[in-house]
Amino acid sequence: MKTIVQGTGAPVTISRDGPTVIIGERINPTGRKKLAAALAAGDLGIVRREALKQVAEGAAIIDVNVGAAGVDEVALLPEAVKVVAAAVDVPICIDTANPQALAAALKVCPGRPLVNSVNGEERSLSAILPLVKEHNVPVIGLLMGDEGIPDTVEGRMAIAQRIAARAARLGIPAEDIIFDCLALTVSTNQQAANVTLGTIRRIVSEMGNNITLGASNVSFGLPDREVINSAFMVLAIGAGMTCPITNPGQMKQLILATDLLLGRDEWAMQYIAYFRSKPQ
Amino acid sequence: MKTIVQGTGAPVTISRDGPTVIIGERINPTGRKKLAAALAAGDLGIVRREALKQVAEGAAIIDVNVGAAGVDEVALLPEAVKVVAAAVDVPICIDTANPQALAAALKVCPGRPLVNSVNGEERSLSAILPLVKEHNVPVIGLLMGDEGIPDTVEGRMAIAQRIAARAARLGIPAEDIIFDCLALTVSTNQQAANVTLGTIRRIVSEMGNNITLGASNVSFGLPDREVINSAFMVLAIGAGMTCPITNPGQMKQLILATDLLLGRDEWAMQYIAYFRSKPQ
Repeated sequence: MKTIVQGTGAPVTISRDGPTVIIGERINPTGRKKLAAALAAGDLGIVRREALKQVAEGAAIIDVNVGAAGVDEVALLPEAVKVVAAAVDVPICIDTANPQALAAALKVCPGRPLVNSVNGEERSLSAILPLVKEHNVPVIGLLMGDEGIPDTVEGRMAIAQRIAARAARLGIPAEDIIFDCLALTVSTNQQAANVTLGTIRRIVSEMGNNITLGASNVSFGLPDREVINSAFMVLAIGAGMTCPITNPGQMKQLILATDLLLGRDEWAMQYIAYFRSKPQ
Repeated sequence: MKTIVQGTGAPVTISRDGPTVIIGERINPTGRKKLAAALAAGDLGIVRREALKQVAEGAAIIDVNVGAAGVDEVALLPEAVKVVAAAVDVPICIDTANPQALAAALKVCPGRPLVNSVNGEERSLSAILPLVKEHNVPVIGLLMGDEGIPDTVEGRMAIAQRIAARAARLGIPAEDIIFDCLALTVSTNQQAANVTLGTIRRIVSEMGNNITLGASNVSFGLPDREVINSAFMVLAIGAGMTCPITNPGQMKQLILATDLLLGRDEWAMQYIAYFRSKPQ
């Protein structure tokens, strides 16, 4: 299954046959005080710099989230999207839980952005999916619902089916739904990662959709988190995740190595090109 | 399926339910000039130090290979085994292609060592398996034969079946065969790692044996080999490899992180204990 997104440059295809597509995560004020303060002050300089930096580091899509205390998302999200679209030509991933902010951002965003996100809650399905249909764009479906985040593969699959059925009813094509299988920390639940990986494998074999993951929660509360996050990234790609939301500066080379091992990098050209271009 | 090995200390169980078991690779003169020269001079001081160091770094089994130019393996391998057995209490993996050296080493090795290795060649099967049966020890079966190293999963599975059938005929129990699925470099064959991973998955689902891998060949000829080797280690454990032959100093924490994610480290106790004990 192929999902196609586009900014002002070439289209980007997400599929299990092609290379893993990195969605750069860093334009997100969660846990980043300096960015949060700049956004609250209406300063989009960091947003522009982070867009440029992440594309240079290997992000193929830029996530844009401005949800912070003191920010009017409906006003600021479209401005941030315009700043990013002016700085880089890759597709944008519009990241908000606010339907009004999403609608405003979709109006100004060039190309074919990705919407982040809808979830299985009735309130989300009914507010987000009509916007997705109206703008003919792909959307990330979070596998949580009115029942919370199920702690079984079956529970998450039920939400995936619910989101897919609602989207299909509106005429949104299946390939425009990318599922986020969600990763909770393994520090409190030994089976947390296995449930995520099992859900990825089930979606691959039964539905075929592309899959994303914000993979850093898995290590919450544990030391040397980057080691755990690296191992999880490789396991998730091995299971069938196609477009992680991550920090390209930390993860690009490991992802290229994984793609190489999985037969997605002919003659190791991408891996070697990255090695040659990186600061030694 | 459980394989049990033992040195002078507690037995070590290799299985897909338990933690990944590291076989320390460093007592092997291939590509290590200083060790090769010391062995040729009959100096086993480095062997002793490498055994101690690898156990401290997290190896659960120590591979012992003294095959270098100018070395009489039949004389030196038993001496090296005795030096390692006196230094550390973990099981030993006796690593030689020479049946006479293997027989001599098995005579002096305490506990229940692992034999590395038999392969699918008639000459190897007929020389090695009787020694394995006589000493009631487990053996690593390399998936290469008179036909070389097959470049398909089916070809490697045929060799696995051949080794398993010959061992069964001699009364060697199935759990005492650990397969080495072999990893060739991805720099010249884009599918090399996929064939290895596919063979691991087939053995897991059809035969159930434990699986080892000397995983560093996969990156031969490529830059930043440790990144590729790390990704391959995680993919192979995810596919079902249980006892890699590797350098614990480089791989222990990543392997613990992978075990944690796969639900094999309750309350993250092993991962956190390693973090606390490592030099900061």
